[in-house]
Amino acid sequence: MAKEYNVAIVGATGAVGEQLRHLLAKANFPVKNIKLLASARSAGKTLPVGDKHYVVEELTKDAFEGVDIAFFSAGGDRSIEFSQAAIDAGAVVIDNTSAFRMDENTPLVVPEVNPQALKDHHGLIANPNCSTIQMVVALNPIRDAFGLDRVIVSTYQAVSGAGTTAIEEMRQQYRDIEAGNDIQSPGILPVGGDEKHYQMAYNVLPQIDKFQDNHYTYEEMKMTNETKKILGDDTIGVSATCVRVPVVYGHSESVYFEVDKDDVTIEDIQNVLRNAPGVGLEDDINQQLYPQAVNAEKKTETFVGRIRKDLDFPRGFHMWVVSDNLWKGAALNSIQIAEQMVADKLI
Amino acid sequence: MAKEYNVAIVGATGAVGEQLRHLLAKANFPVKNIKLLASARSAGKTLPVGDKHYVVEELTKDAFEGVDIAFFSAGGDRSIEFSQAAIDAGAVVIDNTSAFRMDENTPLVVPEVNPQALKDHHGLIANPNCSTIQMVVALNPIRDAFGLDRVIVSTYQAVSGAGTTAIEEMRQQYRDIEAGNDIQSPGILPVGGDEKHYQMAYNVLPQIDKFQDNHYTYEEMKMTNETKKILGDDTIGVSATCVRVPVVYGHSESVYFEVDKDDVTIEDIQNVLRNAPGVGLEDDINQQLYPQAVNAEKKTETFVGRIRKDLDFPRGFHMWVVSDNLWKGAALNSIQIAEQMVADKLI
Repeated sequence: MAKEYNVAIVGATGAVGEQLRHLLAKANFPVKNIKLLASARSAGKTLPVGDKHYVVEELTKDAFEGVDIAFFSAGGDRSIEFSQAAIDAGAVVIDNTSAFRMDENTPLVVPEVNPQALKDHHGLIANPNCSTIQMVVALNPIRDAFGLDRVIVSTYQAVSGAGTTAIEEMRQQYRDIEAGNDIQSPGILPVGGDEKHYQMAYNVLPQIDKFQDNHYTYEEMKMTNETKKILGDDTIGVSATCVRVPVVYGHSESVYFEVDKDDVTIEDIQNVLRNAPGVGLEDDINQQLYPQAVNAEKKTETFVGRIRKDLDFPRGFHMWVVSDNLWKGAALNSIQIAEQMVADKLI
Repeated sequence: MAKEYNVAIVGATGAVGEQLRHLLAKANFPVKNIKLLASARSAGKTLPVGDKHYVVEELTKDAFEGVDIAFFSAGGDRSIEFSQAAIDAGAVVIDNTSAFRMDENTPLVVPEVNPQALKDHHGLIANPNCSTIQMVVALNPIRDAFGLDRVIVSTYQAVSGAGTTAIEEMRQQYRDIEAGNDIQSPGILPVGGDEKHYQMAYNVLPQIDKFQDNHYTYEEMKMTNETKKILGDDTIGVSATCVRVPVVYGHSESVYFEVDKDDVTIEDIQNVLRNAPGVGLEDDINQQLYPQAVNAEKKTETFVGRIRKDLDFPRGFHMWVVSDNLWKGAALNSIQIAEQMVADKLI
């Protein structure tokens, strides 16, 4: 009989935790038992995982006894405080926060791109940032075929990336506007932990996460640093502009990239992406076919379209990349990491 | 006594026509009389221009007698059909459509950038595309100071650019979603005249105007071709990705540009833009200050912020550019063209 695993979800009540519960129930992953963990405030609630219901337990350092795989998605502070306890109890931690992503002893993995990195784990694997994952799923097959020198990306990121309370804040703003009322003072977006908060409804906010000394945001630097680490190549240039748009689910990205070969055509790029793992090619200008955020919701693929040559630099191309930020950008990629580890006999 | 002018607004009932009426009433422009022109369907309606009300007349070739300045904003077909009649009647036409923008006998003018082009007019001046105007207002002072080799732009464009019926279509979608109903079949966005139509609420659509053979849209090629014409330099590279976002007013743009000088700093760019005509610098990461679409509504400035150096190319920079697409992007720029012509004694 195939091995089965005891699985814990840390942050079971959050936006990503909800999708982890949903996807674990649907996946063929060999689950023996599931433990839902969250803050004391949520302990005692009952939450579904597929047809079954589980009582949420409080996240403590003693909560991981018997756990084989622990998915962490409760914020970086919680990962820093509790992941070692999970590892000490014998679990492999798959962490969806940014806490350990750039740690040199921690593999940062997108299974379609760098599954080989998993074997070097020390009990914890980091799940990359949502906006990074979908970009490297699209870029990696292009790099394999034609090389990759440089990337410039502008994102159109969904509000669900800021959590369920951010979604509700935006929805309330739409209700207030529709009713002719002033909107209430925003308290969450663009960044829950930052000083100022702005309207999201009918607006565009060019800030995701806090500003760094170099005038980039932390989210933008995640795209730069994580892309280099996942692709295993510090020489690839990546500069990002990360922007929140009033969309609930699905990140969109306008990606400019330069290949390392002459005479590559649009069709060459399309052919590579058509057969690439995890990619859904949606690129037919005659059918007005291109990826859209609302179509990507609850889909497993990273969708790519609008592929065209830069008008000035012969090795430059543009493409449009869309994926469900809570699925491939978070919960799905985490489960795929676990599946890859089972397949590779690393768990 | 200063000369006063008889002004006609062709397309007086549309989104841009509404702003033309509003701005003409507020401006110090020396108006003698105003004539509102529209399709036969709208003729007989009464519309305000400031405190006064005017009856809309049907647009015919005989409607321009006595008119000194005719603002056209009723679609390219109407401009092609009726602009010559206005010119023949002695009017100067300021055309907000794309019909004549790339015609070599037609000046394409942003008054802060290339006012000198006005003197070569043959009765018609073209108002550039909304997304182009705000970009060149920001780029031109940078080019004057440091040179400009290349631009890559991704836009976040408001629905009002597609007209008042597109706004209403989107708003109805939000009402339907909030009420838990299916949304009605979209009939306008992304492009009224194209085959397929898609949901705009909570979505992002990477298509504005129709696709061209090179896989770019017509809107994207407008940004390329019009920027070169306005800046008077075919060697500047411009590649655009034009995207509609669920915003009502205000286009945002993520602009990457390469200057022609070494060692230019963020502060150098900020200092140039702080004193540039028509620019509002909003760039302070310590205050989370950056341009936002909702803040740009009914403002005359093109707002610029998020200025930073590219992480890879030493002469590369990124900035975030926001302006009211119906004001500086259309009605305001048209009126500023007329004001410039009066100042230059060209009318």
